[in-house]
Amino acid sequence: MRLLTRARLEATRAPRAKRAADFDRAVAEFFMRIALEEAAKGLGRTSPNPVVGAVLVKGGRIIARGYHKKAGTAHAEVVALEAAGARAKGADLYTTLEPCDHYGRTPPCSMAIIEAGVRRVICASADPNPQVSGKGVARMRRAGLKVLTGVLAEEADRLNRPFFKMMRTGLPWVTLKAAVTLDGKLATATGDSRWVTGAPARAWVHRLRDSVDVILVGSNTVRKDDPKLTTRLPGGGGKDPLRVVVDSHLRLSPGYTVFTQRSPARTVVATLEDPEGRKARRFLAQGVDVWQLRQKSGQVDLKALLRRLAREGHNHVMVEGGAEMYGSLLRGHLADALALFLAPKLIGSPGLSWAGDLGVKEMAQALAVKDLTFERHGDDLLLQALL
Amino acid sequence: MRLLTRARLEATRAPRAKRAADFDRAVAEFFMRIALEEAAKGLGRTSPNPVVGAVLVKGGRIIARGYHKKAGTAHAEVVALEAAGARAKGADLYTTLEPCDHYGRTPPCSMAIIEAGVRRVICASADPNPQVSGKGVARMRRAGLKVLTGVLAEEADRLNRPFFKMMRTGLPWVTLKAAVTLDGKLATATGDSRWVTGAPARAWVHRLRDSVDVILVGSNTVRKDDPKLTTRLPGGGGKDPLRVVVDSHLRLSPGYTVFTQRSPARTVVATLEDPEGRKARRFLAQGVDVWQLRQKSGQVDLKALLRRLAREGHNHVMVEGGAEMYGSLLRGHLADALALFLAPKLIGSPGLSWAGDLGVKEMAQALAVKDLTFERHGDDLLLQALL
Repeated sequence: MRLLTRARLEATRAPRAKRAADFDRAVAEFFMRIALEEAAKGLGRTSPNPVVGAVLVKGGRIIARGYHKKAGTAHAEVVALEAAGARAKGADLYTTLEPCDHYGRTPPCSMAIIEAGVRRVICASADPNPQVSGKGVARMRRAGLKVLTGVLAEEADRLNRPFFKMMRTGLPWVTLKAAVTLDGKLATATGDSRWVTGAPARAWVHRLRDSVDVILVGSNTVRKDDPKLTTRLPGGGGKDPLRVVVDSHLRLSPGYTVFTQRSPARTVVATLEDPEGRKARRFLAQGVDVWQLRQKSGQVDLKALLRRLAREGHNHVMVEGGAEMYGSLLRGHLADALALFLAPKLIGSPGLSWAGDLGVKEMAQALAVKDLTFERHGDDLLLQALL
Repeated sequence: MRLLTRARLEATRAPRAKRAADFDRAVAEFFMRIALEEAAKGLGRTSPNPVVGAVLVKGGRIIARGYHKKAGTAHAEVVALEAAGARAKGADLYTTLEPCDHYGRTPPCSMAIIEAGVRRVICASADPNPQVSGKGVARMRRAGLKVLTGVLAEEADRLNRPFFKMMRTGLPWVTLKAAVTLDGKLATATGDSRWVTGAPARAWVHRLRDSVDVILVGSNTVRKDDPKLTTRLPGGGGKDPLRVVVDSHLRLSPGYTVFTQRSPARTVVATLEDPEGRKARRFLAQGVDVWQLRQKSGQVDLKALLRRLAREGHNHVMVEGGAEMYGSLLRGHLADALALFLAPKLIGSPGLSWAGDLGVKEMAQALAVKDLTFERHGDDLLLQALL
């Protein structure tokens, strides 16, 4: 009963928690937060599917939890139901996304929930597909279950922004991550950029890498930094994302670390060159994939690249440089979020400014960013915003 | 007794406030904070003197307050003593700076304090002049007064950083204030910079102007923005600082607003040109002062300019642009503090980066900033740091 006691206590403390409805909502939000924590465990692992978490509650006690681990494996609701077994009968099911109602790689969750004898279902996000949305809820209601929707929907939607964008537009969610000096420079004029930020900021970047599907960089970043682009979490573990290097004319040597290292994830070169050509074959021979894409202004069409990444099941792309890549994505309105580390140092002109050319002539035409938040990581400052 | 009750309460709440000494310190800090608030009223008005505040306390009650209003007028301690009159006898005097012990434009405060019959003196900052420091304290102790020093010394020292630097080095405290986009740009390539930040940030800038002695800008800033460089506080009032425009070769037209407007404060052009020359006379004819300074690499020697400003009694110089001016001051290690507004927008290259050329070739040689703090002003972010 410990959790329910805590929930009850929180409800009592809330200034508006005077009526039974308020109490019910406080309890629902309390358990939904735990379901959201479950969902977050799947970040970076479930694409093209969303992350989903589920919690089964009976008599004020959590009797089972589950989250969706990987596309093709059981949905979160089913994971929790299987863990609970017969005890699921009469329980409340909290799930961060409306249960599905269709036969895909797994049978519809709505039916599994009804069969298990669940009494009440509480959902956060609605299904982003309007043709699907509401069907599972309707089926469960017809079967006599109570269904509550929209509990902590905003938090749940935020967790699945990449999935929702992909469903809506066929393009992945694109996060620009950059580490710059207080005067907005990625590197000195000679290209030196090691290191802009300190260890805590770099550790945060590795956690971000662990939670995305793809790391995308331009060829200059490989040439100047020779990065690994792997996930190295402070405590070990973590998952390497797919690495994509844009090199329109295949001018990079295949000898760079990103092409030669061992990693469970693949590396792709996105180019305009023929994959059958001599240059491409040197990459292929090393196990690097070569994607030929259509051109836009003589360079790889980044929108076409993003569309292909979405088609291949990648919802979240993190961009790690350089200035030209950031500029092209911003100019093309292809970026969704910004994670900008500011280090407490100055290098001045003619250092390399991070945002690239945006074609802005007057201050009034500046590209606005929204929802700016900031937090400290060691000596550095992390600014996050939506574009 | 209300204030003492509050002080006692605070002392009781403090985890270490179990002994009498802790209680005494909590009370002393409580009243010293009020003296610091008094001192702050003088910011921007007392140069070349420091800001000083004083509070007289008797029976747990504040019986008089005072602050130093302007060089040549009464010191804070004397203002408070005069306000208290005969009631000062037996009182405790809180003062944010060690009382002086010499005959200047006013008689020594130490003697006035002794004569008034004050029982105890509590000071924050020590006098920065080692030949003066301790003399007033010693005289008061010889006269039988209890003297406590160093209470909230750090806070008090911070308030007088400009005065302390001027005493130590003969140079004023220099604050660089800039408003930039999230990619560190002051203006677009065409020079457009109106507006980078929103109204709350601009109001903060006017409060800063009100608290400094001098606004310094380069000639490009006048040419591109035609600024007033006056103090316009949201509620009206405020004091215009001396305005200094650096124009090494007197290429600016005397028709810019900063030279033609009416303001209680003067405007100075700092130049290499002869003040008797034709170009200079056009400025002089308009009531603008022309200061001829020595050259350094073909430009006005900024250190010489700052030294002259200090000599003429200005402790705090605020620099409002542009990039070249920031760069020259940073490169010359002449800047002390940074107030950088970041607006939630991007303009990209080839916009004008704020920090100018610092001659940094490698990231490891970057100019470090210290004590970085940040706060929100409307939609903008204010970063402050020491250089």
